[in-house]
Amino acid sequence: MKRSDRLTAEGVLFTDQYQLTMAQLYYRMGLHERRAQFDYFFRSYPDYGSHRAGYCIFAGLEWLLDWMQEAHFRDRDIEHLRNQTGRTGRPLFDEGFLAWLRANGTFDGITMRAIPEGRVVHPNVPLAVVQGPLATAQILETPLLNHLNYPTLIATKAARIRDAGRGRLLLEFGLRRAQERGASAGARAALIGGADFTSNVGISHVLGYPPKGTHAHSMVEVFMALGEGELGAFRAYAEVYPDDCLLLVDTINTLESGIPNAIRVFEELRRKGHKPVGIRLDSGDLAHLSIQAARMLDDAGFPDTIIVLSNQLDELVIWQIITQIENEAPRYGVDPDRLIHRLVYGVGTRLITSQGASALDGVYKLTAVEDSGEWVPAIKISETPEKTLNPGNKLVWRLYDRRGKATADLLGLEDEDPRTMERILLHHPTEHTTYRILQRDEISEIEPLHVDLLDRGRPVYTLPSIEEIRQQRRADLKRLDPGVKRLINPHVYHVSLTERLWNLKQELIAATREERPRSRAPASVG
Amino acid sequence: MKRSDRLTAEGVLFTDQYQLTMAQLYYRMGLHERRAQFDYFFRSYPDYGSHRAGYCIFAGLEWLLDWMQEAHFRDRDIEHLRNQTGRTGRPLFDEGFLAWLRANGTFDGITMRAIPEGRVVHPNVPLAVVQGPLATAQILETPLLNHLNYPTLIATKAARIRDAGRGRLLLEFGLRRAQERGASAGARAALIGGADFTSNVGISHVLGYPPKGTHAHSMVEVFMALGEGELGAFRAYAEVYPDDCLLLVDTINTLESGIPNAIRVFEELRRKGHKPVGIRLDSGDLAHLSIQAARMLDDAGFPDTIIVLSNQLDELVIWQIITQIENEAPRYGVDPDRLIHRLVYGVGTRLITSQGASALDGVYKLTAVEDSGEWVPAIKISETPEKTLNPGNKLVWRLYDRRGKATADLLGLEDEDPRTMERILLHHPTEHTTYRILQRDEISEIEPLHVDLLDRGRPVYTLPSIEEIRQQRRADLKRLDPGVKRLINPHVYHVSLTERLWNLKQELIAATREERPRSRAPASVG
Repeated sequence: MKRSDRLTAEGVLFTDQYQLTMAQLYYRMGLHERRAQFDYFFRSYPDYGSHRAGYCIFAGLEWLLDWMQEAHFRDRDIEHLRNQTGRTGRPLFDEGFLAWLRANGTFDGITMRAIPEGRVVHPNVPLAVVQGPLATAQILETPLLNHLNYPTLIATKAARIRDAGRGRLLLEFGLRRAQERGASAGARAALIGGADFTSNVGISHVLGYPPKGTHAHSMVEVFMALGEGELGAFRAYAEVYPDDCLLLVDTINTLESGIPNAIRVFEELRRKGHKPVGIRLDSGDLAHLSIQAARMLDDAGFPDTIIVLSNQLDELVIWQIITQIENEAPRYGVDPDRLIHRLVYGVGTRLITSQGASALDGVYKLTAVEDSGEWVPAIKISETPEKTLNPGNKLVWRLYDRRGKATADLLGLEDEDPRTMERILLHHPTEHTTYRILQRDEISEIEPLHVDLLDRGRPVYTLPSIEEIRQQRRADLKRLDPGVKRLINPHVYHVSLTERLWNLKQELIAATREERPRSRAPASVG
Repeated sequence: MKRSDRLTAEGVLFTDQYQLTMAQLYYRMGLHERRAQFDYFFRSYPDYGSHRAGYCIFAGLEWLLDWMQEAHFRDRDIEHLRNQTGRTGRPLFDEGFLAWLRANGTFDGITMRAIPEGRVVHPNVPLAVVQGPLATAQILETPLLNHLNYPTLIATKAARIRDAGRGRLLLEFGLRRAQERGASAGARAALIGGADFTSNVGISHVLGYPPKGTHAHSMVEVFMALGEGELGAFRAYAEVYPDDCLLLVDTINTLESGIPNAIRVFEELRRKGHKPVGIRLDSGDLAHLSIQAARMLDDAGFPDTIIVLSNQLDELVIWQIITQIENEAPRYGVDPDRLIHRLVYGVGTRLITSQGASALDGVYKLTAVEDSGEWVPAIKISETPEKTLNPGNKLVWRLYDRRGKATADLLGLEDEDPRTMERILLHHPTEHTTYRILQRDEISEIEPLHVDLLDRGRPVYTLPSIEEIRQQRRADLKRLDPGVKRLINPHVYHVSLTERLWNLKQELIAATREERPRSRAPASVG
């Protein structure tokens, strides 16, 4: 796509058609400027088939806000809409609506609060709460979901991969297999969730991280085709990058050619006073080869060189590699812990596409609408009880137990504050008879999770740097029960409702079934 | 990301770091302007777990060419590289290389031929062949893979879903679950591979298609919260869109509320002289509900209304729905064929993320490099024979049998033309003893698949419109054996080597193993 077309494709029209047809309907019915509230939440953790997540890492907010600030209906966008016709050939959008859109089609009327990026988050918890004029809050649905679902999916995968790698250096290598321009958001999310660096040069520069990478097989093949062989290629690399020499050793034969040639070049570098960095293994039995590589490098006097592993890695493959090293390394006189500590993981495809679970099921649901200056809670009932909405204007609290570990996320109504309660009833979101009661002294901390981001379009929050976001992620993961972090069959973390929210939900379900009028929420529209 | 940062993130630096470190190495070794050839191909069809593809639909070329034409090293990009440092703190890139990049860092030296978009393609066939200065052809690797892998993956999935839906109207609905900006490329690829339209407004406008969509649950919920109920919402929709009235009927209860209310509104529309369009089902047992909906709509005198199905659809789910309709519809007095013909599929997540196979394993491999004015073929040997490269400058031919069905893709050397051969030997790419011989009269047509796109940066090809690309896709699928199109366990389509290419490959494998000097290819560097 040409750059000029990107402004059209990915500006304010980066939304679904039905958002615009609904916005026009609200306009025609005089409802377009009524304030409405929508919750963004996901329904279930990513399920990778043989394993699944027990937590997610929230990401994507900053770029959503960037998009909201830049997107507005330009004359050109209005012209595009003006040319749309319905089945009879008449214009689909009328001039009154288009004039309103041109004058009011920005996100300046949106108030938003959200859980900050990098935080551990769970299903059915409102991660972002949007209040604004019904028409623009509706148009925002698709771009909001687009900007939050994918980054949260990738940050989560990165956190799992980092955990499997026992916190060793993790490099994001996925640009070539990413979903075209989605690569940028994917790399940022990976950096938030667990990757230390990315090979993607452009996004590294934008985010202020040095990009990482050394060389590919093709470099060795060039030298081979020109008759200089693998050793010639390695020597050329060492000559150009004497202090950054990391060699890919599997182009011909890892153990018989690649590692011996690398060691020869490392010895030459050492004689010239340089410290070689390490090797990269990109094929074969990575556990076995890394043991043999460690042995050969140790024997040659290079015990501090690193060993980068790549090739279709993910959390399970890394877990398997480490397990195999623990079993197999002692047999070759290699200390498994030392070897595990010199490993670096380069993870491409399976991180940036979240292989096994290629989408997060995040949704954006109407929870309340203004009527005569008051919020009327809205609900969507489903035949699957888990999919029935938690209605109204909700706040989210995280409860920590006496050990300081997070024990539950509690959704309550906006005028409730569990910090003032002597005993807290945590109601299961769908099971009538399932609840638990916590006494105040069983809880070491009650933390509100939402922060205010936008007040009618005006930013009221200083966005954290990626370093700060990562610190938050590390802190949250430390306060998460190890069982919840298990790669396979994790413990189910509790997300609960306060008693009042539970009661409101039941009342609304009954009213909907009987088509009774709704009760009003206590708070007036802000 | 702010728009200004996108120019940096997704301009010429939209590549992997090692491409730049290798480019500098080539510069320092005086190899950077040597002409080199790279092949783009994928190794295996997408494998979705319980099913896998037997063909792919190639897509992405036009936007790759757009990117190549716009990308160049701006002063700002050079400045970013200048600030990169190695481990000792010294600049990683030297001024000589940066000056060369600034002056020569465009893709104006690239010559490219490729198989056109929309064509059926198979593993190990060079889909694009790039020749150009080693340094720039190397930097191109990552952006080329990024622009071709994902669209080909999605066009393939769209073709399968369309096939499962027996060619009925297919709408792409995936923007909200797509990989951020990758949604644009995903929607275009879906349109190429099998979707008729997309809900994505921006990309529809850019590509010249009307975007599709009607309304969401939230519209019904607004009216419910305001006390007007589902019927009020439907009436409002019919009032605003009397000739485009398509109603989502599952917000409360599909059979007891949604469809009866829709029929009531359709009757009101009919009395006013309008023709209602149809309904959408988004939850529950879609086969059962569509049978009941058809019955109710028929009984009310609306047999021509369409029934749009959505909610986690993919090729298997659609196949299952159709199978169930065939079994179950007669029991309710509904003609299954008529019902199947009124169905429309809205497919979101599982199309735009290619659920089950989230990446295509496309690679870009060095196949030859210039030495003293001649091409020296390059090879990459792998311990997995299937991964050993087919070397040299290759052309691709498609052979059609007497029925006019494609029977094999044949890779030959550039000076071979199977159209002049009396008998054609098709050698298996890796099995020594497996080959077949076709007499010329067993073959109805021999078609060269590559077209020239760029001649040293100059476009030499008129890019087809998406309509033309779709016609090509339909024509290719018609000429594909039905067994190859099977959703599950498809026939394996033959990709073969000519005898001379097979012999060259064996010679190079032996030479690499023995580190012998390479034979020169016959042709001089163009």
